[in-house]
Amino acid sequence: MAQLLDGQKLANIRATKLKKQVDELKKQGVQPFFSVINIGDDISSKIYLKSKKKLATKIGIKQKNFQLDSATSQAELLSLIARLNSESQVNGIMIQLPVPSQINLNEALSLIDPEKDVDCLTPSNVGRLWQGNHFVEPATAHGILALLKHYQIDSSGKHVVIIGRSSIVGKPLAALMLEQDATVSVLHTKTNNLAKYTKEADILVSAAGQLGLITEKMVKDNAIVIDVGINRIGNQIAGDVDFQNVAPKVSYITPVPGGIGPLTVESLMEQVVKLARRKNGR
Amino acid sequence: MAQLLDGQKLANIRATKLKKQVDELKKQGVQPFFSVINIGDDISSKIYLKSKKKLATKIGIKQKNFQLDSATSQAELLSLIARLNSESQVNGIMIQLPVPSQINLNEALSLIDPEKDVDCLTPSNVGRLWQGNHFVEPATAHGILALLKHYQIDSSGKHVVIIGRSSIVGKPLAALMLEQDATVSVLHTKTNNLAKYTKEADILVSAAGQLGLITEKMVKDNAIVIDVGINRIGNQIAGDVDFQNVAPKVSYITPVPGGIGPLTVESLMEQVVKLARRKNGR
Repeated sequence: MAQLLDGQKLANIRATKLKKQVDELKKQGVQPFFSVINIGDDISSKIYLKSKKKLATKIGIKQKNFQLDSATSQAELLSLIARLNSESQVNGIMIQLPVPSQINLNEALSLIDPEKDVDCLTPSNVGRLWQGNHFVEPATAHGILALLKHYQIDSSGKHVVIIGRSSIVGKPLAALMLEQDATVSVLHTKTNNLAKYTKEADILVSAAGQLGLITEKMVKDNAIVIDVGINRIGNQIAGDVDFQNVAPKVSYITPVPGGIGPLTVESLMEQVVKLARRKNGR
Repeated sequence: MAQLLDGQKLANIRATKLKKQVDELKKQGVQPFFSVINIGDDISSKIYLKSKKKLATKIGIKQKNFQLDSATSQAELLSLIARLNSESQVNGIMIQLPVPSQINLNEALSLIDPEKDVDCLTPSNVGRLWQGNHFVEPATAHGILALLKHYQIDSSGKHVVIIGRSSIVGKPLAALMLEQDATVSVLHTKTNNLAKYTKEADILVSAAGQLGLITEKMVKDNAIVIDVGINRIGNQIAGDVDFQNVAPKVSYITPVPGGIGPLTVESLMEQVVKLARRKNGR
């Protein structure tokens, strides 16, 4: 039976450390300030916003949510971003996904001040990441690396297979894993025969968002399985991995919930604090 | 026996088309202007500079080489870059590699005006590429895609295995291949058992710079083999692939010389012209 990679536990440990840093910053007159823009009424988004705010409050980060109407125009969004860019007390700006179809997300993201780009989605921060300069790190990828490190799992020389090529998870994780000297394969919706690749993975990361995608036949004995999927079934969430049948076969596995989810939220707060420290020369 | 992917022939075809574009631009008073900075006396660099200049002249691009002493300081290099950034007639700036050890290449590259960054090595242009915005494209990756397209080889759904994770070839090619819907694996010096991966490649791209690295046992029957390696043996050059023994087994293969090399130089000129056109609103 696999050892559980307990993301919730690590998130708690890291949040406690982060709170101490924030306490120190506050003593020096620095209040980390995080602005989140949410457009429309996506139910999952509201849940994420709530869990972010809860953790931010616990750590001592000021989080302000800007709730925009689902009919918000591109111009209105850009104008809000410009305002937040110019407000010196704001350290981090994030656009909660998904956004309605009238929004040109790439244009909006590229207008965020790179110094306030907590999600590492502006072109210059994406480029820096690929060049080994961790000006800011995408939260999920950062959380995955922290989790592997916590359990003393070395990625060097390992075959890391990533399912998903999003800007938020798959691509930045590929960058960080290459930097860790892993051999990296990126699979996606156009990949023929997923199992052919997943069976070769020493470390398998599924960020497909497809319930039960990964069955026990698709993983190698003793592999390490990281489940980034968050799929809702009623009030419950479950991952991309058929946990019950995969867990007995592998050496390590993340649960869902309690795995990468809480680590992602905590990592995001770390980025806010990182940007606040840099801004204030600390 | 494999069909030859004739990079030299395609480079000639594309150079002829490019010359027509440049002739048109000149009629409108636009003279594409390319500045190359070379530091020190690397023999290969001098050969590349010569072949660039020859093609630039043929196409009608003005190329000016700045030859700096091998003892050039970082400050001198940065000052030259600043000058070239400010000179409005300069459309493209490139630093010829390798540079001497006293030079901080990343710092120098990041100071190049992204509007003049022909090699796509500034952070914002690297980020743009990963986001699907081809503001400028790295020459080798651009050449490889052009070659596959010319021979009507579709990368979608194929397993593309890239050996090498450099900023110049491996990483940008991974970005472009993911965009083409290929499943992408990136191998490098820390990969254990290269053959295990190369044997699975539908399209194998070797950018290792290691003579004879790829033997016939390492490739799948009917694979497509792209050899980016340029290894010097006296006055001759040869690739990473044991061409004689690999060619009979695969469906397509690039020769060295006459494959990716000439396409890279031609693609670089395309980027200079692209930047000159954009600068002049054309």
